[in-house]
Amino acid sequence: MLRVKILPDDKTIEVLDGETVFDACCRAGIMIQSACGGVGTCTKCVVRIKEGATAPSPHGVRNLSSTEIEQGYRLSCQLKVRNDLVVEIPPGSRFYGEQILTVGGAAAPETALDPSVRQYYCQLPQPEIHDQASDFDRLARALGAHAPDLVAGLDPLRELADALREKDFRVTATVSGRRLIRAEPGNTRGTAFGVAYDIGTTTVVGYLIDLTTGKELALASRSNPQAAFGHDVLARGDYADKGPQERRELQDLIVGCMQEIAAECCEKARTPIDHVYEVVFGGNTIMTHLVFALNPRHITVSPFTPIWSRAYKVPAHEIGLKLAPGATVYALPSVGGYVGGDITAGMLACDLDRREDLTLFVDVGTNGEILLGNRSRLISCAAPAGPAFEGAKISCGLRAMSGAIDKVSFSESEQDLDLHVIGHHPPRGVCGTGLIDAVATFLKTGMVDPGGRVLEPDEAREKLPEKLAGRVLPSENGSDLLLVPKAKTLERRRDLTLTQRDIRELQLAKGAIRAGVDMALKVWGVDGSQVSNVLIAGGFGNYINPAAAMAIGLFPPDITVDKLEFVGNSAAVGAKLCLVNRGQRARVERLAREVEYIELSGRKDFADVFMTAMLFPGYEGL
Amino acid sequence: MLRVKILPDDKTIEVLDGETVFDACCRAGIMIQSACGGVGTCTKCVVRIKEGATAPSPHGVRNLSSTEIEQGYRLSCQLKVRNDLVVEIPPGSRFYGEQILTVGGAAAPETALDPSVRQYYCQLPQPEIHDQASDFDRLARALGAHAPDLVAGLDPLRELADALREKDFRVTATVSGRRLIRAEPGNTRGTAFGVAYDIGTTTVVGYLIDLTTGKELALASRSNPQAAFGHDVLARGDYADKGPQERRELQDLIVGCMQEIAAECCEKARTPIDHVYEVVFGGNTIMTHLVFALNPRHITVSPFTPIWSRAYKVPAHEIGLKLAPGATVYALPSVGGYVGGDITAGMLACDLDRREDLTLFVDVGTNGEILLGNRSRLISCAAPAGPAFEGAKISCGLRAMSGAIDKVSFSESEQDLDLHVIGHHPPRGVCGTGLIDAVATFLKTGMVDPGGRVLEPDEAREKLPEKLAGRVLPSENGSDLLLVPKAKTLERRRDLTLTQRDIRELQLAKGAIRAGVDMALKVWGVDGSQVSNVLIAGGFGNYINPAAAMAIGLFPPDITVDKLEFVGNSAAVGAKLCLVNRGQRARVERLAREVEYIELSGRKDFADVFMTAMLFPGYEGL
Repeated sequence: MLRVKILPDDKTIEVLDGETVFDACCRAGIMIQSACGGVGTCTKCVVRIKEGATAPSPHGVRNLSSTEIEQGYRLSCQLKVRNDLVVEIPPGSRFYGEQILTVGGAAAPETALDPSVRQYYCQLPQPEIHDQASDFDRLARALGAHAPDLVAGLDPLRELADALREKDFRVTATVSGRRLIRAEPGNTRGTAFGVAYDIGTTTVVGYLIDLTTGKELALASRSNPQAAFGHDVLARGDYADKGPQERRELQDLIVGCMQEIAAECCEKARTPIDHVYEVVFGGNTIMTHLVFALNPRHITVSPFTPIWSRAYKVPAHEIGLKLAPGATVYALPSVGGYVGGDITAGMLACDLDRREDLTLFVDVGTNGEILLGNRSRLISCAAPAGPAFEGAKISCGLRAMSGAIDKVSFSESEQDLDLHVIGHHPPRGVCGTGLIDAVATFLKTGMVDPGGRVLEPDEAREKLPEKLAGRVLPSENGSDLLLVPKAKTLERRRDLTLTQRDIRELQLAKGAIRAGVDMALKVWGVDGSQVSNVLIAGGFGNYINPAAAMAIGLFPPDITVDKLEFVGNSAAVGAKLCLVNRGQRARVERLAREVEYIELSGRKDFADVFMTAMLFPGYEGL
Repeated sequence: MLRVKILPDDKTIEVLDGETVFDACCRAGIMIQSACGGVGTCTKCVVRIKEGATAPSPHGVRNLSSTEIEQGYRLSCQLKVRNDLVVEIPPGSRFYGEQILTVGGAAAPETALDPSVRQYYCQLPQPEIHDQASDFDRLARALGAHAPDLVAGLDPLRELADALREKDFRVTATVSGRRLIRAEPGNTRGTAFGVAYDIGTTTVVGYLIDLTTGKELALASRSNPQAAFGHDVLARGDYADKGPQERRELQDLIVGCMQEIAAECCEKARTPIDHVYEVVFGGNTIMTHLVFALNPRHITVSPFTPIWSRAYKVPAHEIGLKLAPGATVYALPSVGGYVGGDITAGMLACDLDRREDLTLFVDVGTNGEILLGNRSRLISCAAPAGPAFEGAKISCGLRAMSGAIDKVSFSESEQDLDLHVIGHHPPRGVCGTGLIDAVATFLKTGMVDPGGRVLEPDEAREKLPEKLAGRVLPSENGSDLLLVPKAKTLERRRDLTLTQRDIRELQLAKGAIRAGVDMALKVWGVDGSQVSNVLIAGGFGNYINPAAAMAIGLFPPDITVDKLEFVGNSAAVGAKLCLVNRGQRARVERLAREVEYIELSGRKDFADVFMTAMLFPGYEGL
């Protein structure tokens, strides 16, 4: 056994000769990013060797710069351990799923173990001439009140006679709801597993759960492979509308991804995938339609109606997922076309329906979902923020990956911007959190006025410290604001700047979310001061700087920054709750029916609210 | 248009030039036997041209004798109408299904139309920005109390959006139970059909029913193609036990047969097979197992336990039946391994659970099923009669087909046997009814004594009229009884005789049934005089001569012949009831649970009862 010490965790793992650092870390619960599935091409899993250097792999040589290789960077998926090592995992390589998992608190309420899938070991009386009950009736009799009104599909019936007789009528019955789905000879209790998925437009994460103990055994994630047909759901909706063939194609992609994740989790936890009996997922309404190969077209055009919005359970094989025989897929219910199963999952995770105090829940993303309420009433709306927060439509926008500027502040000592870059790369763009930070800083320093106008170079030289003024560059359309000069970027091809247009894109995005929040408060008849908590959810939301969010006016000024709470990947938590507890399903189904949905585009007052919401705090023109 | 007059029906049919007589008759509701599917090889459909002779077809030339062709016999499936004809259908060519249908009376109680599958035409309010309900919820809302708790599989959901929008949200919903199975644009009510099957070991009959009106539209039948793997269920059970492949093979055969019958019915009635939404069948427990590819092995060995005995409903495609999308198959429940869905169907058909008076129900066949009871209690048992009644194990045994001696009596005027042969052929064997008749006549005339011993030739000459005595022939094992001398048989190769052993086989068969009846009476604690009605069911049972049945002691002597009633194909009637009325399903499921089953082989007193039951009336040796 060799030893690998992981920094900054300061954790030492025992590793078999030849095992990769990536696999060893995963096994130890230290999650590393990967988009290529460990074949050495995506470079997301890069780590740095601090002691015990090893030669770089061919993939490393091809995909990393020589400087990086000199500094000890290696692709962890290709880095086979041959001697003791000390390895540092750069922040940009760490898989965010882990952070989400540790968020806990508000986003992970305790729930009793009461899964839909259960296993019972029974010793049945053997048939004899005075007891000729059928095999199935014999089993049903033994299960009695544990599984009332038991039924069975053909597959378990076909194996039942042999299963009973192989070990003298000692048998383990796996039951899903009231349905017998498997009969195995002898005692095999403790071999029932499930996977809870958060199916995002961009990323899919799955968690393998032991349904006998409720314990989480492994997680795995993938980029959503449907991205090949468009980064946003609307583009995928267009493709899906072409015909059944295309819908099948998109379904195969997402289901293939779910299959890979399940397989990877099972491999990590050394559990057999043919004992995964149930899959639960939360996804937005369009993603949910695509998983089932339903045409989401009418969600994408007014009046935005889905085909189906309830919770849905089908045999896993009907969508092409190959798990245990009899395995089922449960999709969390949607409230409507733009408040989907990811959000109802979030409601569960955050106990929105059980809170006394008025709580605002916001999932910040391409589509901003907003919930407001407490145990007596919940209202919801969806704000079409667009992809600015994900870096799209921003001239130097980038997803939150290695090389992205993710934090921007004003350094008093330097009298200049202070930038933070994810990972070990030189900067190559700005991600959503960096964009919010940057604009907050521009507003604070006066580089951008509350109406959203960028200062002209002349004005800048008058009003700003020298270094800041030097960042205001003349351009054809207003001014550009320099973040990183060409020479210090990764590609060294052009300056990293934010343009006037980029600022306007951010205004549109934040304005949409803010308008949704304002409308929700208006419908409820309260102002922000009466809101006790603001829960910010979603993969992206977790990294927002609260002060910056307030500075750009993402929330009304009477919501104070101390009310902001980050609840992590609440969609995944909600899916896990539904996997381990049937009561949670009934609850989320009731919630999805009861939550009121406000269609913003259907309100005459929305245009006004939206106009105001796009402005930054301090604007006095209106 | 040409005209074909059918005799003895004296019905004239208009026929298109070139249509076959077989098809034209079917179209007109005059059913003709066929086992080869109309390809001219089985000769079951033979008819006789009385006027307007036509040249024989090549198949006719090959398969009919030259005498037959001279007499005008033709294969109706090959006989294309080119000019006006007068055609006689010999009794042996007529399909018995028709006779069964006309039995009516006790076997066809009235039932209200309340099928599981229903169609609703609705005009839905169109979605708008203030009414964004999903397509499914919109439909569910419109159906309201007509279809509470509506659910849907993926297929109907996939067509729902287009179906709604094609005709401005006017749509016809086809609902099975609480499941939406189809959505079609506009008003398509009245296009829901079902097929009720009686799946016998030998013959499969199907009836196409209009589920909107309850009207029977067509029937079709086939020989059970599993016969290739054994004429009795036990042989098929052995084959099925070889493995999943073999079970699949048997399943494919019977399901293919069901498919052909459905297709033929739909063609006759000119209804689209993709609007057949439900199939109901009654079959014995082994046949039911084979339809679902369940291994019936443990039914065939002590203690005779099935895998499953309840009613069972699965999607039709799961057994490979291709009907409407979303179509289901409903199997009637069994009481046990040898009292199957055909018998529970019979209980329904005969209202056994609603009768005040004590009623005995007997299905005479390879396996004799016996029910005794009234509205307060029903008991059942199964008697393994063996295949003697179907002509097997009898030296000159034959199924009830053309050339079979089906009636035997003693002619006082001739002082000899009087024989009746099915169809137009010279005799070539004796079928079950003929066997019973013959033995009854032998007992009456003293050719066989009440112990079952055939007279020796010497004794015969002493005691019998000359012609009868001439029929007692010496043989190695006791005497043989001559029915038809060689020269008058079809093949002219050997005499048609019944041997001592044949008499013993009949004793075993009738003894089993009688023992079952006696045991049922014993368990109930009554004698035959307290039984008000004896209902005789089954394709074979219908043709038994009641007096002959009493003469051989098939029933106890205190059951008088006037109590015997023939109820036809009660299994088919029961299946039809379950197809058109959901309440009947609940009723038959309750019945199957409540009926008590007596396992004869588990009773110590059975051997004695059986021994006595084998003897003929008047035996005084015991």
